[in-house]
Amino acid sequence: MKTLNARLIAVSGLLSVGFAGQHSIAAADKTKTSHPNFIIILADDMGYGDMGAFGHPTIKTPNLDNMAHQGQRWTNFYVAAPVSTPSRAGLLTGRLPVRTGMCSEKRRVIFPDSKGGLQASEITIASALKTKGYATACIGKWHLGTYSPDYSPNAHGFDYYFGIPYSNDMDRVDGPDYFSAITKPKIDYFNVPLMRNSEIIERPADQTTITKRYTQEAVNFIKQNKEKPFFIYLANSMPHVPLFRSKEFENISLRGIYGDVIEELDWSVGKILSALKENGLDENTFVIFTSDNGPWLIFNEFGGSAGLLKGGKGGTDEGGMREPTIFWWPGKIKPGVVMDMATTMDILPTFCKLAGAKLPNDRIYDGFDISPVIFGTGPDPRDVVFYYRGTQVFAIRKGAYKAHFITQSEYGPDAKAIQDPPLLYNLNVDPSEKYNIAAKHPEVIAEIKKILQEHLSTLVPVENQLEK
Amino acid sequence: MKTLNARLIAVSGLLSVGFAGQHSIAAADKTKTSHPNFIIILADDMGYGDMGAFGHPTIKTPNLDNMAHQGQRWTNFYVAAPVSTPSRAGLLTGRLPVRTGMCSEKRRVIFPDSKGGLQASEITIASALKTKGYATACIGKWHLGTYSPDYSPNAHGFDYYFGIPYSNDMDRVDGPDYFSAITKPKIDYFNVPLMRNSEIIERPADQTTITKRYTQEAVNFIKQNKEKPFFIYLANSMPHVPLFRSKEFENISLRGIYGDVIEELDWSVGKILSALKENGLDENTFVIFTSDNGPWLIFNEFGGSAGLLKGGKGGTDEGGMREPTIFWWPGKIKPGVVMDMATTMDILPTFCKLAGAKLPNDRIYDGFDISPVIFGTGPDPRDVVFYYRGTQVFAIRKGAYKAHFITQSEYGPDAKAIQDPPLLYNLNVDPSEKYNIAAKHPEVIAEIKKILQEHLSTLVPVENQLEK
Repeated sequence: MKTLNARLIAVSGLLSVGFAGQHSIAAADKTKTSHPNFIIILADDMGYGDMGAFGHPTIKTPNLDNMAHQGQRWTNFYVAAPVSTPSRAGLLTGRLPVRTGMCSEKRRVIFPDSKGGLQASEITIASALKTKGYATACIGKWHLGTYSPDYSPNAHGFDYYFGIPYSNDMDRVDGPDYFSAITKPKIDYFNVPLMRNSEIIERPADQTTITKRYTQEAVNFIKQNKEKPFFIYLANSMPHVPLFRSKEFENISLRGIYGDVIEELDWSVGKILSALKENGLDENTFVIFTSDNGPWLIFNEFGGSAGLLKGGKGGTDEGGMREPTIFWWPGKIKPGVVMDMATTMDILPTFCKLAGAKLPNDRIYDGFDISPVIFGTGPDPRDVVFYYRGTQVFAIRKGAYKAHFITQSEYGPDAKAIQDPPLLYNLNVDPSEKYNIAAKHPEVIAEIKKILQEHLSTLVPVENQLEK
Repeated sequence: MKTLNARLIAVSGLLSVGFAGQHSIAAADKTKTSHPNFIIILADDMGYGDMGAFGHPTIKTPNLDNMAHQGQRWTNFYVAAPVSTPSRAGLLTGRLPVRTGMCSEKRRVIFPDSKGGLQASEITIASALKTKGYATACIGKWHLGTYSPDYSPNAHGFDYYFGIPYSNDMDRVDGPDYFSAITKPKIDYFNVPLMRNSEIIERPADQTTITKRYTQEAVNFIKQNKEKPFFIYLANSMPHVPLFRSKEFENISLRGIYGDVIEELDWSVGKILSALKENGLDENTFVIFTSDNGPWLIFNEFGGSAGLLKGGKGGTDEGGMREPTIFWWPGKIKPGVVMDMATTMDILPTFCKLAGAKLPNDRIYDGFDISPVIFGTGPDPRDVVFYYRGTQVFAIRKGAYKAHFITQSEYGPDAKAIQDPPLLYNLNVDPSEKYNIAAKHPEVIAEIKKILQEHLSTLVPVENQLEK
């Protein structure tokens, strides 16, 4: 069920970079052209349906909509896990969190008291790009370990870090119960630190201005690095609850406070793309917008919407792991809708290919170089997606078909339910996972079971970092 | 909860037409400019989520997406009823079907053996525009009566009619059971006529080429009427089941046959907009794309998707009556997303205003002239939407709030359930109607109950045309 995306046509000037990975093309500034800048803008808990370009009726996102119109709207783009820490570990390393010890059933993410983190042996997008002279910044939520300096952004290839290092609802102090603190939030309820590199510069972080300050940091980094290639990983703290936004965005959205927050993120995206244009960098900067996992539905209207997809954050239905994703690179990638499958783990191999950075052969990568899809030069190398919850494979997508081997509500009290035969859905025809067609397709289930066995055979035991 | 749409800015050249309704403005062709052409493209049973611009992940609709980008994407646009006949009666007359006798509980639509229809006393968009010299064509599904010539399109202001006069699943002949006939359709199972004016020209209509032929008819009518103002009401038979598409569209969509059908409709829209451009008429033609009601969910993957909205065809949840709607008029209306409320019943007063056509004062209209919203010159005149099922008000939206007084599944065996207090949702914050807030807002319920009583007092008994 691979789909050739006929609407994407290669841009010849780019190809010599993208596929040869060489520096030898005719361009005014060789260094810049063969080393494009990269920016990943990550939202936190934003749902598949939470912007205009993905169909939301009352959240205004003119900047994201324009970004989608000028670029590529990816409609089958996944994350490595349905919660924060393992999703981010997957994105930055190109590897499933089960290979890095960054996932667990008991403690699903890193907490302020967690002793574990992303090990020094792991290679992130930042550390890979550093080998090619990139200036690198991590702005926003890290969530890959805070106990040891070895787990910090600075230890993982980032020259610069600015942000709240874990979720913005952590470090609770005395106050109302958790649900009340979330639905009527005050800054003082959440004693989260704001850090610049290894230094805490504010505590509790003033979350009302956090999106604005992250944006300013990103714009500054762009301006400061006009003359050399850069990589910015802007991992917004919003719209994870508690929801905060700047004064200018209070009560502006029909969608309520959640809408205000998304509309401030939309403003932020606009600022960053404008900064690229103003500095003459837009045609040399590849920007990706996506989210770390689906909407946190247990918070009702304080959580987002997965649109037509089923489920949300924490679960392995589509709404938990398929994200509203936009690729933007004016003049380099052909605008359109891309329906091919890809994941955040594909970003590392793709950026490395585009920058000519080499990756060591001593480990398994779960990501693919998807530049053939981006530039329309070949078929999608990815035909399978694994849906992990903690350290277990709950579901697998192969082409159009998704088999659920284990089901469990995202945050409900129910135990895991083993599905045998697995539930089977055709996601192309039935994106909302409504019509189980297992009885009709035993051969597909057999094939997916084989993929599962082959996949499991590639796993080796690693120390669980989240339970430390 | 009115929303001023700050993104829409008046185009001064247009205003003198739109608001004065006069013919005296400076333009090369006075007649054309003061009498813009109008085209309504209606889909049949297409859901709110069934195109790219409204968030579908696997249906490719580049023409509709471009139309939305060049025009206005309306995200709170409603129909007069959740099924075909009353919805179409409301659209063409600007009046709720309860005022025209065109709705019923028992027979919810017109059938081939129905003796009733739209009465001669009713004024349609076509008959109103004829007073200003418009050439008028109805192409496609009529569904407002076939028993008498008095109920025909030609009797209601249309110079020309071409189409299948009712639903394409009617006139069943012997064959497999209904569900099988729908899911594995053959043309011969449905002995529906194709008519040109009052003449049957083909029976059974070859439905595989129906979208293509409707498109050709519309393009021909555009070409034939370059020199005078025209109104085309193109009411597609698709994607109502049974689903048929041309050879060229077989198996092209990831979404299966339903996707093939929508992608052919998308092609059709592209052809029509291209014909306008090629004939130099695009800046003088106001085109509206919408659907008659929500997706027919009982047909599973053969029905569409309402996206993030609840429910579908037949019911009064949002998915039944909120439609994927695009307004297009290059150079005249400011592109953007419009979140103001409007309905198909607003089209008649708006077109009449733009064309300077007068409507008689002897009847109640339920539509408003929404040109202030379209051109960004003033607030939305509409603040209330009535959700009728048959002759009963099941729900009312006032501003952001929707109260459900009666609920019933679209096609299930359950009886009506009276809701007292009514279920109350804030549709801006909670478009999926998940969080009942009735207990928190008794004052809103009281206000909506008053609106209901006032509305009911405007109704007078009329003969039920659908039970005849």
